[in-house]
Amino acid sequence: MPLLGDAYGKGSVRMSKVIRGRERHEIIDLTVDVHLEGDLAAAYTDGDNSLVLPTDTMKNTVYVIAAEHEFEGPEELAALLTDHFLSRNAHLDLARVTVEQRSWERLGDDPHTFLGSSGERRLGMAEQDREGTLVQSGIDGLSVLRTSGSAFAGFLRDEYTTLPDKEDRIMATTVMALWDYLERPSSFGDVWRDVRRALLDTFATHESKSVQHTLLAMGEAGLAACPEVGEIYLQLPNQHHLPVDLRPFGIANLDVVQQPVDEPFGVIEGTVGR
Amino acid sequence: MPLLGDAYGKGSVRMSKVIRGRERHEIIDLTVDVHLEGDLAAAYTDGDNSLVLPTDTMKNTVYVIAAEHEFEGPEELAALLTDHFLSRNAHLDLARVTVEQRSWERLGDDPHTFLGSSGERRLGMAEQDREGTLVQSGIDGLSVLRTSGSAFAGFLRDEYTTLPDKEDRIMATTVMALWDYLERPSSFGDVWRDVRRALLDTFATHESKSVQHTLLAMGEAGLAACPEVGEIYLQLPNQHHLPVDLRPFGIANLDVVQQPVDEPFGVIEGTVGR
Amino acid sequence: MPLLGDAYGKGSVRMSKVIRGRERHEIIDLTVDVHLEGDLAAAYTDGDNSLVLPTDTMKNTVYVIAAEHEFEGPEELAALLTDHFLSRNAHLDLARVTVEQRSWERLGDDPHTFLGSSGERRLGMAEQDREGTLVQSGIDGLSVLRTSGSAFAGFLRDEYTTLPDKEDRIMATTVMALWDYLERPSSFGDVWRDVRRALLDTFATHESKSVQHTLLAMGEAGLAACPEVGEIYLQLPNQHHLPVDLRPFGIANLDVVQQPVDEPFGVIEGTVGR
Amino acid sequence: MPLLGDAYGKGSVRMSKVIRGRERHEIIDLTVDVHLEGDLAAAYTDGDNSLVLPTDTMKNTVYVIAAEHEFEGPEELAALLTDHFLSRNAHLDLARVTVEQRSWERLGDDPHTFLGSSGERRLGMAEQDREGTLVQSGIDGLSVLRTSGSAFAGFLRDEYTTLPDKEDRIMATTVMALWDYLERPSSFGDVWRDVRRALLDTFATHESKSVQHTLLAMGEAGLAACPEVGEIYLQLPNQHHLPVDLRPFGIANLDVVQQPVDEPFGVIEGTVGR
Repeated sequence: MPLLGDAYGKGSVRMSKVIRGRERHEIIDLTVDVHLEGDLAAAYTDGDNSLVLPTDTMKNTVYVIAAEHEFEGPEELAALLTDHFLSRNAHLDLARVTVEQRSWERLGDDPHTFLGSSGERRLGMAEQDREGTLVQSGIDGLSVLRTSGSAFAGFLRDEYTTLPDKEDRIMATTVMALWDYLERPSSFGDVWRDVRRALLDTFATHESKSVQHTLLAMGEAGLAACPEVGEIYLQLPNQHHLPVDLRPFGIANLDVVQQPVDEPFGVIEGTVGR
Repeated sequence: MPLLGDAYGKGSVRMSKVIRGRERHEIIDLTVDVHLEGDLAAAYTDGDNSLVLPTDTMKNTVYVIAAEHEFEGPEELAALLTDHFLSRNAHLDLARVTVEQRSWERLGDDPHTFLGSSGERRLGMAEQDREGTLVQSGIDGLSVLRTSGSAFAGFLRDEYTTLPDKEDRIMATTVMALWDYLERPSSFGDVWRDVRRALLDTFATHESKSVQHTLLAMGEAGLAACPEVGEIYLQLPNQHHLPVDLRPFGIANLDVVQQPVDEPFGVIEGTVGR
Repeated sequence: MPLLGDAYGKGSVRMSKVIRGRERHEIIDLTVDVHLEGDLAAAYTDGDNSLVLPTDTMKNTVYVIAAEHEFEGPEELAALLTDHFLSRNAHLDLARVTVEQRSWERLGDDPHTFLGSSGERRLGMAEQDREGTLVQSGIDGLSVLRTSGSAFAGFLRDEYTTLPDKEDRIMATTVMALWDYLERPSSFGDVWRDVRRALLDTFATHESKSVQHTLLAMGEAGLAACPEVGEIYLQLPNQHHLPVDLRPFGIANLDVVQQPVDEPFGVIEGTVGR
Repeated sequence: MPLLGDAYGKGSVRMSKVIRGRERHEIIDLTVDVHLEGDLAAAYTDGDNSLVLPTDTMKNTVYVIAAEHEFEGPEELAALLTDHFLSRNAHLDLARVTVEQRSWERLGDDPHTFLGSSGERRLGMAEQDREGTLVQSGIDGLSVLRTSGSAFAGFLRDEYTTLPDKEDRIMATTVMALWDYLERPSSFGDVWRDVRRALLDTFATHESKSVQHTLLAMGEAGLAACPEVGEIYLQLPNQHHLPVDLRPFGIANLDVVQQPVDEPFGVIEGTVGR
């Protein structure tokens, strides 16, 4: 029976690197995933491992490359790694490296101390084949909420629809964004901060008729902020806040307290281009 | 700026259904995801929701369809749901429903009591467009471990390789399998049990030269067991058990105790066809 | 300002040990927590570490003791470890070691292959001071559900009570049990299996008027099954299955489908003695 | 067989409340746990539920009390709730309510938009019996890291000790703090911010000879900042960053890259009083 597809790699290689400047330190905290494709079938069919670079070696390589090189952000480390694997292994066709950066915020002006409570992540991805390299950047875990200016009304109704129109509701989501580049920016970090700012500002101020409606506006704002960016994919879960019905207890106002629920959740997706 | 792609749906609709037979009960415990694509752009571009069936309605629909119909397994419920959405909504192009079934094992012969401690899940998926419907089945969270008969040696070495050859190691993984069908089987449940049994038996007895080597054998065994199945995709994380070096404490045998680690982990993938 | 209390230890030391019999293997998969108390104040007050055994040494000690000794279950390993720490460190007053054993079920008759998908855990704990040692055993993560024979009615009502009486409901919980001993049993494992069986049988067959009602019956059954056991503490979360109201859709039966929810949940506790 | 102890309650009641000021909104996002003790034995022994207030009613009560009252922080809501349950239920001896507040940070000057990515939580607890009420406040999930000024050397060594002395290491922890009060403060929120600030400043600047050493200094600083506070309990997991040994690859510096690990971890505890 034929092997129709194959791939392998290493997941969740965690690494922190301290940049020890004379006056102050920086901390870079990364989780790296490596994925390789190529002429790997003999391992499956014959137990012939002669072209199988161990995933343990991938882990070591992440540490060595990260130690030996300066890199501005996760995108650069990802590209250093895909280039390393492809340039040294003629039997490989494709290498994809995904790097997730945990943010550590400097504590005031302290030169050596950082707050790391945020669940937000910066993403950098490089996918390289024998034709070239695709670089993507992204954001994950960016949790936002609006208490006003968000409606959902006039939607399609069928006999299973019970949701009432809402002219003003809580809108809460955890932004996942991923974008590619028309050209290499002078600083991936600057683009990241500019896209993030545009997404947040639009989420805050857009007169929203639905999550879909705001998603497009956010994507457009991200593109407008950064001419180097080509397309932006956004995934916005709709994290529902259910009004608690307190009328049995003599409280008429439906919007006084709400119950946030994790399950189920809406999922709204879209890709915005130029 | 153009909207290049869009989709939406509902995630993690949880449901349990009790089938109350005269002598004994059955419990079906499901988590359903709904994903729809179609003529949805006006919601993004104009805030026009007139073609947006609320995700809350998708949730209600899952409950109604599950209550009104008998279905043999997650695949049948998934197909009932995709058919419901596509047949009633001319503006939709595609519906994909994924159903994850949690297993509850009957406690002895008790007619009404079940053990649910297992993390294993049965998967059923239907993806329907205007051409037809693709049905897939799968397994997730099936955790297995072998203490013998698994080697990894003779692999590619470079200057970052420190892993020694091992002729006999612990092999541990959590199986994720997904397969499609050449024809509709008389019972999705029978296929599921047969594929599962073939995967487990092969994992247990294959003389393994690598996870890749065993993956192909497992896929072949699954196909051999079920003529209705077309292709099997397998994802086998390599959940490492690191030998603890006790030589500093006068214990020479490297294999007495091992440290299981969650991170990092290998990832081995492959698709086997006929 | 005075230091009013102090303690330290190591959490989540993970270890697997393979017992290689001639014909077949056993696998023991444990997570160990070590907690020490004693004359440790100088570390806090003066930065004097001369009586601080590093937590890294605790980890090494877990591995060495586990490698050098045979032990029947988590209780015996826990007691070996507390004895090790107290007998060698005159400055310590108390050592508590908690061992959580993950169950791996043998795959059929295979001598080397195991299924580990269950979330159930066996617990063993030893707490030793200069007077003696307390040993406890337990169960965690044992998920069970009944579809009949469970009522909750006639409860206290106030103006915020909306819950209707139910004569027949789904009762689902994840059992956490912890017990001590009047005397050392000949086999901790036999006691564990007997208590577990008694808890399950009672959960299945008790005519339940509430989770509280069944909790006491379960505890009594556990004590009746094992004369060596002194007291049993049980914690039974009430994992609610909310009936989905399908009357708006023309389905009158409230009990056809239910929505399992993780949050909020009831918590019922009790200790049963002789 | 006697019932030696009993209690029950409701866990994880989630609630958000929007305070709609004329110019801007506030969002309060809470998770509430209720625990009750008292004359509850008849439910266990006889299935007599006449004194069992349903946990569903506890949930409703949380919503009603939160809707009807203004409260400055989680402590005040907790005390309103314990008072409610004890004053209306003569059969209860004790009520304990724990409230966990998720922080939502205002996005710039926007009146209605908030960032909620932080995993940090503010805690408030009230435990009331027929003698009075104990109020505690706390912090959980406050993740901090220092890249300099932290040593661990001169510790106790035995034959299982392999850890080398370190004069300068990464110190990372996730602060859990809990404190009580000598007198009711004019603002729980002000105390919370002052204790938090004192803990962080001390973590950043203390010349640390161990986590224990810094724990005491942090507790002392918290007490010094807030005269109303009585005692502070601190739990500081030592979240290890293992130096990656790159010497096999020609990189001598052990501190270039580190591997953060979740398991195992040290646990350092202490209570500081006046």
